[in-house]
Amino acid sequence: MEIPELIRKKRDGLVLTRAEVFHFVERYTCGEIPDYQASALLMAVYFRGMDGRETADLTEAMLRSGRVLDFSALPFAKVDKHSTGGVGDKTSLIIAPAAAAAGVLVPMISGRGLGHTGGTLDKLESIPGFNPRLSYKEFQKVLESCGLALGAATEEFAPADRKLYALRDVTATVESIPLITASIMSKKLAEGIDGLVLDVKTGTGAFMQELQDARALATSLVNTGAAHGKRVHALITDMSQPLGNAVGNALEVIECVETLKGCGPRDLVELCRELTAHMLLLGKVTDSLDHAREQYDSAIASGRALERFARVVYEQGGNPQAVEDYSLLPHARFEESILAREDGYIAELEARVMGVASMILGAGRDRADAAIDPAVGLVFEKKVGDAVQTGERICTLYANDRSRVNWALDMIREAIVVSPAPVTPPPLIWERVLRSEGMAPQAERVVEI
Amino acid sequence: MEIPELIRKKRDGLVLTRAEVFHFVERYTCGEIPDYQASALLMAVYFRGMDGRETADLTEAMLRSGRVLDFSALPFAKVDKHSTGGVGDKTSLIIAPAAAAAGVLVPMISGRGLGHTGGTLDKLESIPGFNPRLSYKEFQKVLESCGLALGAATEEFAPADRKLYALRDVTATVESIPLITASIMSKKLAEGIDGLVLDVKTGTGAFMQELQDARALATSLVNTGAAHGKRVHALITDMSQPLGNAVGNALEVIECVETLKGCGPRDLVELCRELTAHMLLLGKVTDSLDHAREQYDSAIASGRALERFARVVYEQGGNPQAVEDYSLLPHARFEESILAREDGYIAELEARVMGVASMILGAGRDRADAAIDPAVGLVFEKKVGDAVQTGERICTLYANDRSRVNWALDMIREAIVVSPAPVTPPPLIWERVLRSEGMAPQAERVVEI
Repeated sequence: MEIPELIRKKRDGLVLTRAEVFHFVERYTCGEIPDYQASALLMAVYFRGMDGRETADLTEAMLRSGRVLDFSALPFAKVDKHSTGGVGDKTSLIIAPAAAAAGVLVPMISGRGLGHTGGTLDKLESIPGFNPRLSYKEFQKVLESCGLALGAATEEFAPADRKLYALRDVTATVESIPLITASIMSKKLAEGIDGLVLDVKTGTGAFMQELQDARALATSLVNTGAAHGKRVHALITDMSQPLGNAVGNALEVIECVETLKGCGPRDLVELCRELTAHMLLLGKVTDSLDHAREQYDSAIASGRALERFARVVYEQGGNPQAVEDYSLLPHARFEESILAREDGYIAELEARVMGVASMILGAGRDRADAAIDPAVGLVFEKKVGDAVQTGERICTLYANDRSRVNWALDMIREAIVVSPAPVTPPPLIWERVLRSEGMAPQAERVVEI
Repeated sequence: MEIPELIRKKRDGLVLTRAEVFHFVERYTCGEIPDYQASALLMAVYFRGMDGRETADLTEAMLRSGRVLDFSALPFAKVDKHSTGGVGDKTSLIIAPAAAAAGVLVPMISGRGLGHTGGTLDKLESIPGFNPRLSYKEFQKVLESCGLALGAATEEFAPADRKLYALRDVTATVESIPLITASIMSKKLAEGIDGLVLDVKTGTGAFMQELQDARALATSLVNTGAAHGKRVHALITDMSQPLGNAVGNALEVIECVETLKGCGPRDLVELCRELTAHMLLLGKVTDSLDHAREQYDSAIASGRALERFARVVYEQGGNPQAVEDYSLLPHARFEESILAREDGYIAELEARVMGVASMILGAGRDRADAAIDPAVGLVFEKKVGDAVQTGERICTLYANDRSRVNWALDMIREAIVVSPAPVTPPPLIWERVLRSEGMAPQAERVVEI
C-alpha cells in the first residue's frame, strides 16, 4: 500500500478502507511513515472528513496502538465521564466518588491542562501526596477498594494518539471532528469501560465555541462509542462563563469538597447531578433519570460520596485530612478583590478570558512542559444573572507573583460586563445527544441520533 | 511569524501576504521549517488555491532561492519555450535552432523525463559526446556563438523548487495549479528571458488531461509571467496521440533532424511553426504571426536552422556528423512491426499507453534515478485519421531487451483503435491563451485574459 496513493484517496474525498486506516496508524506509530506524509493526510482529513466507519476504525487503530485495561472480572458496570474542557470545569472530582457511591465503578484516567482550560490531573496533584501514577495492579486495587480510581494518562495508552496529537498541534490540523473523536475515544475506550458520559462544552471558553460544532462532535463521539459496542450519552453544556465559582487547582479542590458536603454552587451541583445520573443510567443502576438524580442527591446527603473521595485520596497517597482542614492545601500569598463599579446585573464573565487570566497567574500552562502554581486562581462571588451593587465583590484573585497581578486584573475587569437591565443566565445544559434506544426527552432539547 | 498560524491562515481560505510567502520559502529551503509543516501547508494550498499575487510571490521567492542568469548585455531578445510534457514531444530541438536562425536568442535549460513523458535532456544526451552541463560562462559563450544554448537544470536554479517538488511528489500535492505554476515559472524565469512560449498539453498523454484544467494552468502561467514583467503566450495543444511519429530518444533526434531538413511529419512541423512564430512575436522580431510563420519556413528551407543545430551540437561537445550520418546515433538490436488486422481508419493511438510502452522498452524512467536506453522506442507510420489496410504497418518497435518486447507489444496493440468509418483527427492547437495586448484572433479559439 503506497502512502501517497492513500493520501490522494482521502484528498479526493474517497473513503479509506479499514485496512488502509490501520496500515497508516500502525506504520506511523512505529516510525515507518514519516511525519510529512502523516501531516498531509491529516490536512486532507481536515478538508474531507471521515465517515462514521472510518472514524470508528481510526479510533480502534489508535486504541490498539497501546494498552487496553480489562476490568471485566469486576462485578459492576464500569462507567466514566469525559469533558472536552472548560474553565472551572471540576466535575470529575465530584461525580467519580458520587457515581461510585451509587453503585458503578469509575476507572478514570485524566490528563493535564493546556492553555486556558484546566486539567483534572493538575487539580488532583494540588492535594499533598496524591499520586495518580499507578501501575495497572495498583489502579485495579484502588478501583476495587474505593469504586473509583484516578489515574494519569501515560505513554502506554494510545501512543498513536500522543504522536498524532503532537503533529496536529504544529500543523493546524487540530480542529477536525473525526480526529478529535478518535483522539478522545481511543484514550477513553482504553479504560475498559462499558459506558461513557461526555460533557461537550460550548461557548467562548470551550474548544467548540458554536453549538452546531459541539452538536456535530457530540454526535460523532456517541456514534463512535456505539460502533465499539459502548453506551455513550453526550450532554452539551454551557461554557460561556466559568463553571462554579472557583478557577485554579487547590481552589477548585476546595469547591469540590464543599460540593461533596452539599454546599456547592448551584450550577456546579446541577451539572454534577445530571452527569452522575447519566452515568448511573449507562451503568444500568436504574433506568429512570429521575431516580438516578435522587441517587446522586442521596450519595451527597448521606456523606457517602465524600467518604469515597477521602478514601481514594488516602489510597492514592494523599492526605485525607485535607478534606476537613483546607489549610493543608496550598495557599496563595496575595489576594485582590474586584468590586462592582456600578449597580446592575452580571451580563458576562467571559470564560476564555477568565481562563487566560488564571493561566497568567500561574494556574495553567501555555506550553506542555511549563510548571504550574497549584495555589493561585480566581473565586467568583457573582455569576451571570446575579444582581450587584456598587462596591460589592464580584471576584477575588489569589496570586503568588505580584508582577502578574495587574495584567490579570485588567483582563478580568475587561471580561466582566454589568448590564443595567436584568439578565437571564444561559441554560446550563443546551442539548442531550443520545441514540434512540436511550432515555425519554427532557426539558431541554434531546437530539436522538 | 508562527508557522502553524500561517498554515491555519491558508487552511481557512485567507490570502498569505508577500512577507509570509517569502518567509515560508526561505525558511523551508534552508531547513528551518520541517517537512511536516511544509506538507500540511501544501495540502492546504491544494484545497484553497492561491490568488494571482500569491502565486507570483511564490514564484519569485522560489526563483530567488537560487541563481538567476542575466543576459541583458546581449543585444537580442531572449525567448524560450516550455512544454508541460508529452509523448513524442520533441519540439525544443527544432524550434530552438529555428528561432535562433530567425533572430532571437534561446537560452534553453531542460530537465530529464519521468514516467511516460520524455525529457529534452535525455534526447540531447543520445547524441554522442553532447554535454549539457555548462558553466554560466560556457553557456553564455555558446549562446552568443549559436544564438541558442541547451543546458541542464541543476541544483543552482530554484533549489526551493527542487526541495518542494520532492515533497509534493510523496504527499499527493503535485496537482495544484499555483504550485505547478510556481515550479515551472521559477525555473524558466531563472534563464533571464524576456519572453516565454508555453506549450500546455491536454489529452490522455498530458498531465492536464482535461481542456478546462489546461486552460486554467495556461492562464495562471501567463498571468504569473506578466506579474514579473515578462511576455508570455500559451498554446494549449493536443496530446491524445504521440506528437510526430517517433517516441524514444535517438529516434526522436533523427525525426528532429529530418524536420530541420524540411522532411518532418505534418503535425510536428505545424506545431513547431506555430511555437516558433510565437517566440518571434514575443521577441519582437515581427508583429505579424503570418510573417513569423514565413520566417520559420524560411529558416528551415534555407538550411539555416539545421546549420544552427549542427553548430550547437559541435559547440557543446557532440558529433555534428550525426546530423548527416544517423548510424552515429545509438541503434536498437531488435525490431518488431505492428500490422493492421483490419481495414479502416486509425481512431486512437492512446498517448499515455504509448509513453508507458516506450518506458517499458527502456526509453523512459519510472524512478528519478533509473537509467534509460537511448536507442529504443516506437515509430508510427499511421496517425489518427489515417486510412489503413489489413497487413499495413502501423508502428515499428525498437528494442534491446527481448524480455520486454511482448509486454510492450500487448500494451501498444490494446491502445490502437481502428474504426470502420472515417475519423477526423483532433485539432493540433486547441486554444491560445494570451493577455489582451496580444495578437489578433486565429482560426482556433483565442482566450484573451
